[in-house]
Amino acid sequence: MKDLTPMYVPTFDDVLAAHERIRPHIHRTPVLTSSYFNELVGAELFFKCENFQKAGAFKVRGACNAVFGLSEAQAALGVCTHSSGNHALSLSYAAGRRGIPCNVVMPRTAPQAKKDAVRGYGGVITECEPSTSSREAVFAQVQAQTGGEFVHPYNDPRVVAGQATCSRELLEQVEGLDAVIAPIGGGGMISGTCLTMSAIAPGVDVYAAEPKNADDAYRSFKAGRIIADDAPETVADGLKVPLKDLTWHFVSNHVADIFTATEEEIVEAMKLTWKRMKIVMEPSCAVPLATILKNKDVFRGRRVGVIITGGNVDLDTLPWMKG
Amino acid sequence: MKDLTPMYVPTFDDVLAAHERIRPHIHRTPVLTSSYFNELVGAELFFKCENFQKAGAFKVRGACNAVFGLSEAQAALGVCTHSSGNHALSLSYAAGRRGIPCNVVMPRTAPQAKKDAVRGYGGVITECEPSTSSREAVFAQVQAQTGGEFVHPYNDPRVVAGQATCSRELLEQVEGLDAVIAPIGGGGMISGTCLTMSAIAPGVDVYAAEPKNADDAYRSFKAGRIIADDAPETVADGLKVPLKDLTWHFVSNHVADIFTATEEEIVEAMKLTWKRMKIVMEPSCAVPLATILKNKDVFRGRRVGVIITGGNVDLDTLPWMKG
Repeated sequence: MKDLTPMYVPTFDDVLAAHERIRPHIHRTPVLTSSYFNELVGAELFFKCENFQKAGAFKVRGACNAVFGLSEAQAALGVCTHSSGNHALSLSYAAGRRGIPCNVVMPRTAPQAKKDAVRGYGGVITECEPSTSSREAVFAQVQAQTGGEFVHPYNDPRVVAGQATCSRELLEQVEGLDAVIAPIGGGGMISGTCLTMSAIAPGVDVYAAEPKNADDAYRSFKAGRIIADDAPETVADGLKVPLKDLTWHFVSNHVADIFTATEEEIVEAMKLTWKRMKIVMEPSCAVPLATILKNKDVFRGRRVGVIITGGNVDLDTLPWMKG
Repeated sequence: MKDLTPMYVPTFDDVLAAHERIRPHIHRTPVLTSSYFNELVGAELFFKCENFQKAGAFKVRGACNAVFGLSEAQAALGVCTHSSGNHALSLSYAAGRRGIPCNVVMPRTAPQAKKDAVRGYGGVITECEPSTSSREAVFAQVQAQTGGEFVHPYNDPRVVAGQATCSRELLEQVEGLDAVIAPIGGGGMISGTCLTMSAIAPGVDVYAAEPKNADDAYRSFKAGRIIADDAPETVADGLKVPLKDLTWHFVSNHVADIFTATEEEIVEAMKLTWKRMKIVMEPSCAVPLATILKNKDVFRGRRVGVIITGGNVDLDTLPWMKG
């Protein structure tokens, strides 16, 4: 059954309200620079470190906005969601801060670190198979049983408005940005970035970076319509999900371009960032840098914001240790 | 032959001069906090992140102070040193910035990442065996051959004054500190910390943290005289060297206490920091947190600066991967 509710597209006023609402629950994350990467690319890169964010990822912004925007009556039933990881633990964190129940459906293949973190914040996990179809089917059961408010990981105006606060901070922290790049999976961060930039910094180009092995957004962007894959395989476990109508709205209207990187390029960029910047970040966060390194001409001489989206990684199974 | 030159003990004026001298060449590193660790310890911890420092460690402060304080005539002959790693690459970095030669003696067992970094900055490495006696013997040859200015990794007033700028920044960044803790190897960072605190924040207790497997500073502190081991074995590769007269001066006069941690405790604290704070740091930097976790009573309810001294680690051989 198709949902016929007209889609609400959040505005920058929603972003301002979200920022006030979530401020007590999130970090204003630092922006780091690296002369090594600046010289390597020939650009000025500003890394917005959401890996240092509460719950270890930017997703806590959207999750907190949704949870703390609920009425008392809604909140009493709790919240539920499906997620490859960071949204699950962000929603668990937010629900824990408000003291309400949180049920999440996660692929059984999600990183153990993320499952542990969800449980650490008090979330209850139901596992599904690692495919969009399985995840949505299992979730329907969980939601029916709990009656909790569904907070979609990205196709939700409350979530997009929350994620948009990240770019707002970045603009306050770095003057004269020419461009910003973030990973794209379902498109929540990119949509929030487009929302903020189009409202208060329309001259800033928004680029999205995607694993070549899960390049549904890239193909959608080129085709002019949503193309969804069911179960792509990539080391960037946060980026396997497809665009939905709300995020497609922002991607199709505001994104300047989408670049892709191979698995090898992603792992190499991830390891190089750990080595040179001394920060722990997820494979998903390495995709923007991997695409910058192979598209230097696009970025040369420009001031570029790079959103490091999260740092929840299994330290026992680092991708360069495999094989 | 014993050196009979009276030891010069640097003053806080030397620290102020050092800070002006090195400012163009170093980062003012950020201070991070972690509500997880605060709750775990029952204290407020402020992590001074010298792992984000230029060349990846605090040692670049002392190295830059020494290199940029040289006369033109001295500088023309270059600099030389022996070091377990971070001082070697810091001195190479500083010499590279000034455009002068740098020769370093390093143990053949030093982490490959550190050797690569030294060469990346233009330093020339001569290897020695992993013992104090071998290192000093090989170094004497290298110094005789090159005639370069010897910049000792810690027993040098220029170096101690440079390291002292770290605590000066910490005091500017965090109000109302009660205590500060840093790792102790040769004692350069601890000496600099004592120098700054005793001069401008005498109420702040200075604690040192040391691997139990290389606890010569602990035993020296308890015995009231320098006790040196020749070749201790610890995962904290930066902390194997013994105290010398200048650093012993500060340790014996200003350090409140020295705590030790086992190899297992160090690795556990290191991994936990990577996991919860999303920062890459060396085993040596985990020693303070490891000792805090086992001496919570000392730190409970206090505002404590924790100096994260460096982040130059071999990502291919992480200590929890071994065995």
